[in-house]
Amino acid sequence: MATVPAIRPIAALPTSLPLVERRAALPPGFAAGGAAIGIKASRRPDLVLIRTTDGPAAAAAVFTPNAFAAAPIKQSQANLAATSGDPRGRHGWAEVVISTSGSANAATGAAGDADQAEIGRIVGAATGVAFERVLHLSTGVIGTRLPLDRVAAGVETNVPLLAKSDDAFLAAAEALRTTDSVTKVATTTVELPAGDGGAVTVTVSGIAKGVGMIHPRMATMLAVVLTDAAVDPAVLAGLLRPAAVRTWNQLSVDGDTSTNDTVFVLASGAAGNVSVEAGSEAARTLGAAIEAIARDLARQQAADGEGAATLITCQVSGARDDAEARAVARAVVSSSLLKAAVHGRDPNWGRIAGAAGNAVLADAAVLEAGGVLATEATARAGSPVVLDPDRLRIAIAGHLVFDGAAGGPVPFDRAAARAEMDSPELLIRLDLGIGDGTGEAFGCDLTEQYVIENSEYTT
Amino acid sequence: MATVPAIRPIAALPTSLPLVERRAALPPGFAAGGAAIGIKASRRPDLVLIRTTDGPAAAAAVFTPNAFAAAPIKQSQANLAATSGDPRGRHGWAEVVISTSGSANAATGAAGDADQAEIGRIVGAATGVAFERVLHLSTGVIGTRLPLDRVAAGVETNVPLLAKSDDAFLAAAEALRTTDSVTKVATTTVELPAGDGGAVTVTVSGIAKGVGMIHPRMATMLAVVLTDAAVDPAVLAGLLRPAAVRTWNQLSVDGDTSTNDTVFVLASGAAGNVSVEAGSEAARTLGAAIEAIARDLARQQAADGEGAATLITCQVSGARDDAEARAVARAVVSSSLLKAAVHGRDPNWGRIAGAAGNAVLADAAVLEAGGVLATEATARAGSPVVLDPDRLRIAIAGHLVFDGAAGGPVPFDRAAARAEMDSPELLIRLDLGIGDGTGEAFGCDLTEQYVIENSEYTT
Repeated sequence: MATVPAIRPIAALPTSLPLVERRAALPPGFAAGGAAIGIKASRRPDLVLIRTTDGPAAAAAVFTPNAFAAAPIKQSQANLAATSGDPRGRHGWAEVVISTSGSANAATGAAGDADQAEIGRIVGAATGVAFERVLHLSTGVIGTRLPLDRVAAGVETNVPLLAKSDDAFLAAAEALRTTDSVTKVATTTVELPAGDGGAVTVTVSGIAKGVGMIHPRMATMLAVVLTDAAVDPAVLAGLLRPAAVRTWNQLSVDGDTSTNDTVFVLASGAAGNVSVEAGSEAARTLGAAIEAIARDLARQQAADGEGAATLITCQVSGARDDAEARAVARAVVSSSLLKAAVHGRDPNWGRIAGAAGNAVLADAAVLEAGGVLATEATARAGSPVVLDPDRLRIAIAGHLVFDGAAGGPVPFDRAAARAEMDSPELLIRLDLGIGDGTGEAFGCDLTEQYVIENSEYTT
Repeated sequence: MATVPAIRPIAALPTSLPLVERRAALPPGFAAGGAAIGIKASRRPDLVLIRTTDGPAAAAAVFTPNAFAAAPIKQSQANLAATSGDPRGRHGWAEVVISTSGSANAATGAAGDADQAEIGRIVGAATGVAFERVLHLSTGVIGTRLPLDRVAAGVETNVPLLAKSDDAFLAAAEALRTTDSVTKVATTTVELPAGDGGAVTVTVSGIAKGVGMIHPRMATMLAVVLTDAAVDPAVLAGLLRPAAVRTWNQLSVDGDTSTNDTVFVLASGAAGNVSVEAGSEAARTLGAAIEAIARDLARQQAADGEGAATLITCQVSGARDDAEARAVARAVVSSSLLKAAVHGRDPNWGRIAGAAGNAVLADAAVLEAGGVLATEATARAGSPVVLDPDRLRIAIAGHLVFDGAAGGPVPFDRAAARAEMDSPELLIRLDLGIGDGTGEAFGCDLTEQYVIENSEYTT
């Protein structure tokens, strides 16, 4: 028998993100609104409009890597490219964001592309904003056409009603919902340097939908983050991408990536801070605020996964580097076996170890290839993560259950662990014992309700 | 509107595999048996023994890429390496295969490795076979130790009872089962050249377990294929790997890869054919027979997935190459959304298109890195598959439902499609319209029963 060392608890991950409040605080420089315009048969709100109040905002975006990206994504990319010269359409300038739900306008061919362009012209006519300064989102059934007449009437009616208020932003968040059971909002503030040597308070707020099923076809996640910070589009894109890699890229409800997933960040500059320079302390501050909003929205999305009863957060330390830690965390929250075990309140470390053992550095390359999220090195994509069973430690809900260096399974109070698993949130920690890399991922349990929701007939 | 071309049906994939019968025909040169020796509390059969009757058989293997490979896998790799000099332990010579179920002997540390080596000594003492000519399999609960006294008594009792009969091979197949609802066997015969210029009939037969849950921890798939063909180990390994890539590598029940997955192929040489040379017509014939057995066992495994009601076969044509076709097929059968839609008899082509759009060349590299299955080029791992929505066509149960070149969705008889989906097997076809690559993958629907089976408490 190997010598059994003393049990070493797994430390919490360090964080430098600002605190987040779950409310919709509309930053200065924007007006917003949400309305029901009859795209959805249910008559629920299905139109979101956000516009700047003082000219173009810096904009950055991440999009789905799905090869069948929907028409609104292609239009948004083209528009961002047109306003910035960025050939990949990841950043640029924008004055309006429009989101429609009820029809995804995906897999609709050239006709769908023409529809989306027509929506751009409709919005431009109603707002006086140039065609290429409109950003597009949509979600809903794949393969159906948008009812352009209703969109035109709805935009015309609602543009004059857009308001510079938190209530208006909340209405936008509510209209972004589809089968979401709760409205997803988050806000935070940070201090950025002002021109006079002092500081100004900057707000960063986000709204999001999903990941829930768009009745009854394809899950989609959409988010819009607004800030009054002053920052150039390319710098903003450089802040959004790593934040998204650590948050939305680490979110898994069922492993399916939709044709419509989109995140936009718009910065109005109304706060009057010195424009944020890449690599500066201010960039780190603003980046942390964006990441805090992204992380909180991603957690809200995971918790509201279809049929989900438990938010699963997996935190990994001791990996060779952060990318490997994230890959392990993703593998754990994506495992159907582990997700089902969590549903059954089963502290089943075998499934956690098994899932970790399958972790590979793959997702990042996919996202990079799709022109979107990744900052990971693509040369390593597809490589397995470096793991050593004799160094691995696993804790479930605070109970150390496996310590490779101590021979493997650790006796623990199973009844207490089960009791603690019976909560809306479960924390699973792994320490790989190899390096300094850390990362986390967010998922949810797999329930009978998920299957029921997703196996109903299309009607 | 684009011009709508005539509907072009999607052709069936060509096949050159021999026909397979679902029976256990033990090839000459082997004896087999299965027994209950008390590892499992249920007293169900839990020991499989197969031995050669006339000295060493050529052996080839593929193993799980899971970083936490179980002790029996490490022992088998070491033994194969010792008998062949192949540093990766993928082929060599063997005289005995032992499989135990009830305990996976995974995540058991150095003590578990020592246990597995002791099993090798026990088998060696009972059979007179050298330690390194014993191949090991196991499946069961992770993190528990094997009861060596019971294994020793069971081996000693059962070695003298091994028989050269189909019934004995069937008993081995039955003892390989865990929560499998049916015993999985397959056999075929092919003609290989004999030394006198004539031909001899060669049998290739396989038994397999899973993918079903090992109550209640980790799914594992095990298979043993036996043939009386004469073939060197390295040539045999060269036949097994591409066959596994096209079959077991394309099998997905829930996306989890166990710590214990193993396939062994043993060739006794008793048929007396001219030893099969790499690259020869005989190699193609024997390779096709091995692939036919692998494909049939993989389909049996998919059909018997946990809680599954429907075997889903996805066939892809028109890909840039076969690897890309396989990646798309894998992505489709792995999609939780699609699997749930199949359960609901919903001809939901949106989910199929969405899943195909996420296909990446990742799995193969993982397997290659794990020292196992792949023949795909690792340089392309992590790359997205080349897809064009305007060329894609999708058929569900024989109904063309999407034709990108014709504008997308195709009207079809939804009621008839649903009725045809209400069967034990569903065929989904995609033609990518790009190249000549073909491939297929095997999965099953996602049901409430899967969740129930996998969320029960560990007891």
